[in-house]
Amino acid sequence: MSGKVVAVAGATGVVGREMLRVLEDRNFPVKSIKLLASERSRGKTLKYRGEDLPVEVLSDDSFNGVDIALFSAGGGTSKRFAPSAAKAGCVVVDNSSAWRMDPGVPLVVPEVNPGDIQKHKGIIANPNCSTIQMVVVLKPLHDAARIKRVVVATYQAVSGAGSAALGELAGQTKALVEGRPYPPKIFPHQIAFNVIPQIPQSDAFTANGYTSEEMKMINETKKIMGDDSIMVTATTVRVPVHTGHSESVNVETEKKLTAGQARELLRKAPGVIVQDDPAAQLYPLAVNAAGQYDTFVGRIREDVSHPSALEMWVVADNLLKGAASNAVQIAELL
Amino acid sequence: MSGKVVAVAGATGVVGREMLRVLEDRNFPVKSIKLLASERSRGKTLKYRGEDLPVEVLSDDSFNGVDIALFSAGGGTSKRFAPSAAKAGCVVVDNSSAWRMDPGVPLVVPEVNPGDIQKHKGIIANPNCSTIQMVVVLKPLHDAARIKRVVVATYQAVSGAGSAALGELAGQTKALVEGRPYPPKIFPHQIAFNVIPQIPQSDAFTANGYTSEEMKMINETKKIMGDDSIMVTATTVRVPVHTGHSESVNVETEKKLTAGQARELLRKAPGVIVQDDPAAQLYPLAVNAAGQYDTFVGRIREDVSHPSALEMWVVADNLLKGAASNAVQIAELL
Repeated sequence: MSGKVVAVAGATGVVGREMLRVLEDRNFPVKSIKLLASERSRGKTLKYRGEDLPVEVLSDDSFNGVDIALFSAGGGTSKRFAPSAAKAGCVVVDNSSAWRMDPGVPLVVPEVNPGDIQKHKGIIANPNCSTIQMVVVLKPLHDAARIKRVVVATYQAVSGAGSAALGELAGQTKALVEGRPYPPKIFPHQIAFNVIPQIPQSDAFTANGYTSEEMKMINETKKIMGDDSIMVTATTVRVPVHTGHSESVNVETEKKLTAGQARELLRKAPGVIVQDDPAAQLYPLAVNAAGQYDTFVGRIREDVSHPSALEMWVVADNLLKGAASNAVQIAELL
Repeated sequence: MSGKVVAVAGATGVVGREMLRVLEDRNFPVKSIKLLASERSRGKTLKYRGEDLPVEVLSDDSFNGVDIALFSAGGGTSKRFAPSAAKAGCVVVDNSSAWRMDPGVPLVVPEVNPGDIQKHKGIIANPNCSTIQMVVVLKPLHDAARIKRVVVATYQAVSGAGSAALGELAGQTKALVEGRPYPPKIFPHQIAFNVIPQIPQSDAFTANGYTSEEMKMINETKKIMGDDSIMVTATTVRVPVHTGHSESVNVETEKKLTAGQARELLRKAPGVIVQDDPAAQLYPLAVNAAGQYDTFVGRIREDVSHPSALEMWVVADNLLKGAASNAVQIAELL
């Protein structure tokens, strides 16, 4: 296998570092790797396969000779540099929200809509973390029973907001345990020993009262599933967990599914692990999902409030399946 | 005012102590007070209005001459002692789940169904904490637009599981921050930096896959609202918060309410405070609700997935409105 020239833009961030780990771990055929970041990271090095590699400053010229560029450097950087990368002949897999709803850009979860990759014109978008783990579970249910409506409430980990946010949770937890104050800087309010019904931490709210994170779950789900008739509503909430997003998902289907039928469908679904044995207190947990590539589902039960709906609890590592490993899976399909 | 002879059963517990504080704080007309607890608390004293009062061991004879007994000593104790207390002529306000669904026992939230108190035969039940805060918000919406279905996911604080649970959160958080292990004893899994989709911590699951806490929200809501046609489904989740339950509540109504109409109805509702200014990042938070008697609601928006539904975020102090202050409010009405 000849291997690909791979660039990672935003390599020093929380997700960028996970991307390097995932490329190694999944034995992605890398011929050579290029680590790109902003001016702030000039002079830094990062380890890849035991070697210290220099971080280069991202520019329009960074992508000459690059086959695949994994972007995880924020929406502004993607908007600015993904087109020049694509023009240089490289395929961009972009983890930001910049291109996701662009009709010319496929939005891909490999277990759900791998075929959409073929339609790319140089840029493929990686969906929002909270959307990815939900759609891998929704897809087999939709295929079997047509989903009409989803009501989801999330319990999202702090690492989704980056490394400074993880620092704030650590520092604030320690301060509060020791009885010292620690005013929030990254989050709009105290995150230690609290939950915040606002994601992201700034410019969150849209005109209809939903946050942009909530609208991502609503709009991206329809695009990935390729079905605008699926109605979704979401409330996205930050919780003081390091890594691992949890979701309470209520799914109304046209055809009634029993809990047993849903479990059977999900057991056969790619990338999904059913953990559902209440008697043994077994259900997905954020602390167990952290570090795993799969999406975990449990607490599957027939909704007592509706003739044809299911309740379930869906958990995945927001940095891996929610970002880095989904992006690398897309690159594998290329 | 002559005042009442008041007994507090389970006085040394987290909720029992709050009851004493609330009786003081709300200037309840207490002629004398009797602190009751199990054998384990023999010899202890508790402060009431600056005085150290002895804790007596609860027995069938404890209630002679008592006017009102506030019970917060667990279901078994209530089942065992509430009838003898009622027989002794005292009115029991019981915070356990033992009597809530008994057709002969009123289940009361003073803002919602104060009239039901009249039907008591010696025992009045205080609803489950997560139910109380939800129904004070649902009631004005139901009166205006008839609620058809509620889909709720909760973010419940650790103090709802008692003082040993608070100790476990504190000890486990400290241990994990310092890199030491701290295996769970009270909770079925790690609670620090995690969320657990199981309440209560043991014997939680019922035959239909719901937990008993979830079934309480479903059944108690119908009883308190006096309307069995209200469909409810719930997922109840423990989060690493000390005090203050948060709830993501989706409400389908027969008559469409705009977000503005809902806000207006809720602003006029007793015991409810609307905190809803997304531009200012203002919405209810557990850390702010702790120590307050009211229920806070915000993030009120029209559900984009349904022609006639609302999304909202409801927060209250689970020890106060969720337990102690609701019980004292009932006692005030007696």
